[in-house]
Amino acid sequence: MIAEGVVLEKQGSLAIREIELPGSLEPGPDDVRINVKCVGVCGSDVHYYEHGRIGDFVVREPMVLGHEASGVVDAVGENVTHLKPGDRVCMEPGIPDFKSAETLRGMYNLDPSVRFWATPPIHGCLTPQVVHPAALTYRLPDSVSFSEGAMVEPLAVGVYAALKADISPGDIAVVTGAGTIGLLVVFSALAAGCAEVIVSDVAAEKLALVADMPEVTVVDARTGDLAKTVAERTDGRGADVFFEASGSTKPHETMIDMVCPGGTIVLVGMPAGKVALDVVALEVKEITLTGTFRYANVWGRALKLLGSGKIDIKPLISGTYRFEDSVAAFERAAEHRAQDVKLQITL
Amino acid sequence: MIAEGVVLEKQGSLAIREIELPGSLEPGPDDVRINVKCVGVCGSDVHYYEHGRIGDFVVREPMVLGHEASGVVDAVGENVTHLKPGDRVCMEPGIPDFKSAETLRGMYNLDPSVRFWATPPIHGCLTPQVVHPAALTYRLPDSVSFSEGAMVEPLAVGVYAALKADISPGDIAVVTGAGTIGLLVVFSALAAGCAEVIVSDVAAEKLALVADMPEVTVVDARTGDLAKTVAERTDGRGADVFFEASGSTKPHETMIDMVCPGGTIVLVGMPAGKVALDVVALEVKEITLTGTFRYANVWGRALKLLGSGKIDIKPLISGTYRFEDSVAAFERAAEHRAQDVKLQITL
Amino acid sequence: MIAEGVVLEKQGSLAIREIELPGSLEPGPDDVRINVKCVGVCGSDVHYYEHGRIGDFVVREPMVLGHEASGVVDAVGENVTHLKPGDRVCMEPGIPDFKSAETLRGMYNLDPSVRFWATPPIHGCLTPQVVHPAALTYRLPDSVSFSEGAMVEPLAVGVYAALKADISPGDIAVVTGAGTIGLLVVFSALAAGCAEVIVSDVAAEKLALVADMPEVTVVDARTGDLAKTVAERTDGRGADVFFEASGSTKPHETMIDMVCPGGTIVLVGMPAGKVALDVVALEVKEITLTGTFRYANVWGRALKLLGSGKIDIKPLISGTYRFEDSVAAFERAAEHRAQDVKLQITL
Amino acid sequence: MIAEGVVLEKQGSLAIREIELPGSLEPGPDDVRINVKCVGVCGSDVHYYEHGRIGDFVVREPMVLGHEASGVVDAVGENVTHLKPGDRVCMEPGIPDFKSAETLRGMYNLDPSVRFWATPPIHGCLTPQVVHPAALTYRLPDSVSFSEGAMVEPLAVGVYAALKADISPGDIAVVTGAGTIGLLVVFSALAAGCAEVIVSDVAAEKLALVADMPEVTVVDARTGDLAKTVAERTDGRGADVFFEASGSTKPHETMIDMVCPGGTIVLVGMPAGKVALDVVALEVKEITLTGTFRYANVWGRALKLLGSGKIDIKPLISGTYRFEDSVAAFERAAEHRAQDVKLQITL
Repeated sequence: MIAEGVVLEKQGSLAIREIELPGSLEPGPDDVRINVKCVGVCGSDVHYYEHGRIGDFVVREPMVLGHEASGVVDAVGENVTHLKPGDRVCMEPGIPDFKSAETLRGMYNLDPSVRFWATPPIHGCLTPQVVHPAALTYRLPDSVSFSEGAMVEPLAVGVYAALKADISPGDIAVVTGAGTIGLLVVFSALAAGCAEVIVSDVAAEKLALVADMPEVTVVDARTGDLAKTVAERTDGRGADVFFEASGSTKPHETMIDMVCPGGTIVLVGMPAGKVALDVVALEVKEITLTGTFRYANVWGRALKLLGSGKIDIKPLISGTYRFEDSVAAFERAAEHRAQDVKLQITL
Repeated sequence: MIAEGVVLEKQGSLAIREIELPGSLEPGPDDVRINVKCVGVCGSDVHYYEHGRIGDFVVREPMVLGHEASGVVDAVGENVTHLKPGDRVCMEPGIPDFKSAETLRGMYNLDPSVRFWATPPIHGCLTPQVVHPAALTYRLPDSVSFSEGAMVEPLAVGVYAALKADISPGDIAVVTGAGTIGLLVVFSALAAGCAEVIVSDVAAEKLALVADMPEVTVVDARTGDLAKTVAERTDGRGADVFFEASGSTKPHETMIDMVCPGGTIVLVGMPAGKVALDVVALEVKEITLTGTFRYANVWGRALKLLGSGKIDIKPLISGTYRFEDSVAAFERAAEHRAQDVKLQITL
Repeated sequence: MIAEGVVLEKQGSLAIREIELPGSLEPGPDDVRINVKCVGVCGSDVHYYEHGRIGDFVVREPMVLGHEASGVVDAVGENVTHLKPGDRVCMEPGIPDFKSAETLRGMYNLDPSVRFWATPPIHGCLTPQVVHPAALTYRLPDSVSFSEGAMVEPLAVGVYAALKADISPGDIAVVTGAGTIGLLVVFSALAAGCAEVIVSDVAAEKLALVADMPEVTVVDARTGDLAKTVAERTDGRGADVFFEASGSTKPHETMIDMVCPGGTIVLVGMPAGKVALDVVALEVKEITLTGTFRYANVWGRALKLLGSGKIDIKPLISGTYRFEDSVAAFERAAEHRAQDVKLQITL
Repeated sequence: MIAEGVVLEKQGSLAIREIELPGSLEPGPDDVRINVKCVGVCGSDVHYYEHGRIGDFVVREPMVLGHEASGVVDAVGENVTHLKPGDRVCMEPGIPDFKSAETLRGMYNLDPSVRFWATPPIHGCLTPQVVHPAALTYRLPDSVSFSEGAMVEPLAVGVYAALKADISPGDIAVVTGAGTIGLLVVFSALAAGCAEVIVSDVAAEKLALVADMPEVTVVDARTGDLAKTVAERTDGRGADVFFEASGSTKPHETMIDMVCPGGTIVLVGMPAGKVALDVVALEVKEITLTGTFRYANVWGRALKLLGSGKIDIKPLISGTYRFEDSVAAFERAAEHRAQDVKLQITL
């Protein structure tokens, strides 16, 4: 089929144009067709635009960008019962093999055959209509706007990290990195039971977005001493949970020292290359270290937290562009301004 | 030693008088001496006053009441390092055998030899000074008043129930019973990650205390239909977590039907006698049912949640009496007025 | 399509005859076609034969029996990569909706739309060929015979119960009921880490099958005192884990008293009607009670335990019948002889 | 008090002689006095003998060696109820502060004030009598000899590692390192539910001790390819659990690749210095990595597994020396012969 889309032609070259896409707009029996209303610009979209690749994923053919989306159901397949035309929804962008061993175990995000929007060679959703599995399409609560709905994708990363951290009520957490994901980890950790979060970044503009929250302590990584702050806030005991969300290798050098005996480290950011870890220190304190890859089974959770007002992501939306101005949105995003958190495109 | 105390002479008879108490006011090497500043009136104190017993615990000798207390450290034993005279504190009232098998496993509340304030024949803390293990004495954050500090005991019941429920972020919980404990379970469940709590009680005055919270739905058990509300709020799926905090046998008849597959039931209230459970329904949905007995390892957690403002228990404090008016406080509590949640006595 | 099958015409009436079955023998893209080699006679098959129903599941039309099966792959669909014709396999008999919420959460057994062999109105597998999802078809290790392969279904119930019990190494377990499932729970609990299992039943013939195992203590429920034995074997502390596998209501009356503080009860048997539970005793010991419904994600586990020799289920196979003698097999099973554990039918 | 002991005078110098020890042989109210019967020679004892230090723990004064011990109770303090003179016992060698925060949380091994036998400056138990907390003294089952009782200490390391791995029944584990600890991890992992263990080492003599077990696959690290064997035994999926028990840095380079999605790595051995880890690979597979420090709450478990015969550690006892030949025992141990696993000293 032919559709209009925001197409990454190759590294550094974007166009809004018609493109031949696989499949059809006729939903299969378990699918829904959705009129896309809002799409967020993700750091990975921008990375493909700037570098043409992320690790082993290389843009070899023109590809539609976008994977953070909300919309309105336009048509439903014959087996679909929980959605109907007119429903306001958001869409989980990774489609696993529903019969794989990992999916059956509840870890569908780890299924190696997942097809994820805007991860080459799979096209994204910056196009007026998409057909998607109903099982991965979630109705928005009335109180959640399309703009917020398009934020569920990155929020799900945060909620999933909080889930994997197995937070106990009253925990104190550290988050390194206050980009979109880091900030959403801060919100998620607090929503998931932390009494307090200490967050560090080199960008004071980012930290300013959460500095006024009574449960949050911010540390400017250029001028502050994160380890000292953690010690002060925890009577020298160390944090219960440590989320690494910067992707820098620097926090890995010191994080084990900042965690309490029996504490947990969750790696969300992905550094370039191996990191040297003091595993003996980890053993002596019996710290548990794990990492997250996207998310599984948390979209409904993220929507409930948005819907009841426990998480408010509106302050993170820095700018909105019309679909026809999509290239401008990506150019702005590629400027990496410290005050920008999330730019979105509306259709 | 001889001290002044609020003494339950026998069922129905209270006096403020001098009484001979075991032990001395000289702290042992691991103990602290505390000037008591505030003591809450607990339902169990009132029950002993009215009935002279709770189950197998019978008041056979005059007993000082009170176990919800805050105060100021007056002296510390030679091994004590984390507290010093002048520190504002609250005290965990159950002292286990620190070398018992259950204590070593981290379940000191289940140690059968626990000595708990105001549980016969152990005297309580409605007396000007107490000596207590430093390990069970917690410094109050600056933002937490003595009145709030004396609420940590019942709050710990709620935080512990939330901890045992193993809440995942975005869960929906039901709480049956909106007495002091039920309301503190509501606050704790929300602080621990629930997106939403549905709470039911027969007392509209109690429900009114939380009815305005955006994450809370209240159901008047006399006129409303809890099961229907749960179905509506969960798309017919059932709640993730169900806390029984009324002590009535009635919720036990229907709770399994209100919980989702794989969900959890935590029993906090204690009904009189056995209850009939539909265990096949529990099996078919693989529901996990457990119960709590007081708390373990959550006082620090409760204090952090109070300190950072994630839980605000001030609205639950219904009235304050001076020590010399303690008998009036108990008489008022024994009226069981629907609008009273927590009465406190200050020293 | 028309096939030969062991057909339950109605309560009390069995025939081996041709029957019209839905679907075709042509495997779909994700399916395999299997030549059935061995089918176990399950208590549920016998129950349908004797009573025409199990709870709400009523045999209203003639139905092929059998759901414990092994066989040889005859043909594979185009997407199937992990199996090929000639592979010796066993088949998990419950087919969920692979896109349901429960399946995506890893609890596909709790999906309400599961289609399970020989559960009305779904036909079973006592027929020469079946077509089945490859995702639910497991290759047998070379050391595992077709007869053992047909035992994986009931063994999976035991392994799943052991998994849900979250056994720690060195636990002591109680199992009430030494029928096929009870005995497989005994084997599974030992394989899963228990140091010791105490098993009780009214049938001495069944207990005799495990009485010689050094890790097993048997209690004849007619003459022995299970509670006393548990106390002796656990220094009065109570068992760590209690598996109810008899389906009788009797163990429910006393089980809570036999479990240690912090211990676990797993209900596997399904009693008729509600049972009265001492929930206060459960709360005071903070016991966790849960139940199992069939199994999920354990067939590969059961096969590995059989393959490496950690579990030997051969002693439980009491008799083997040819396909043409299937009616005799069911008649024998309906005699409920104490010395019979598992009867099987070979094709 | 003055006692005879096997004294490490300083690096390289051992003597059996009288030495002034702190404390007295009069048991305190919660203590027992034990006549020592058997003490194992641990790698750490030998390391202190050869090097005079382990990391920050330096032998600055003469120190009695030995921490793996069994014996007979000789006298008990007034509060001791579960032991009596004449009881055959083994002793857990690390004494925590029973009132520390870590102890109350059930993690007494992580209490920084633990006093551990033969860890400078604390004397060990190679002396005829010791006084020890009754809470850390365990009665031996009748079937467990003093020699086996003195093996409970290293076995507890293995059982604890298996416990922390949270093994599910049917898991496949890898163990790198087949020294005493590695072999005991193999036994423990099998006892705790693994269907199969793959173990590698450079010493063929060590591997020979388990090569005949049907559930064990051995890989000679000098000639074999562990990664290839793991892939073969797991259909390319990777092991469920990976225990690093060699202390070498080499396994850390490849272990993440050998573990399945959602799998677990438990570090038991302690490498010298930091190790470079491919944390992105860990994140993409959501592997959980943790480590163990000694053990907590597993001595009773280890004894039950020995007592019921699920673990047989007798093949690991390579030689026995009389107390007066203790120096010869250490000299032999310092030869590090490949065929030696555990040398013991009897009193």
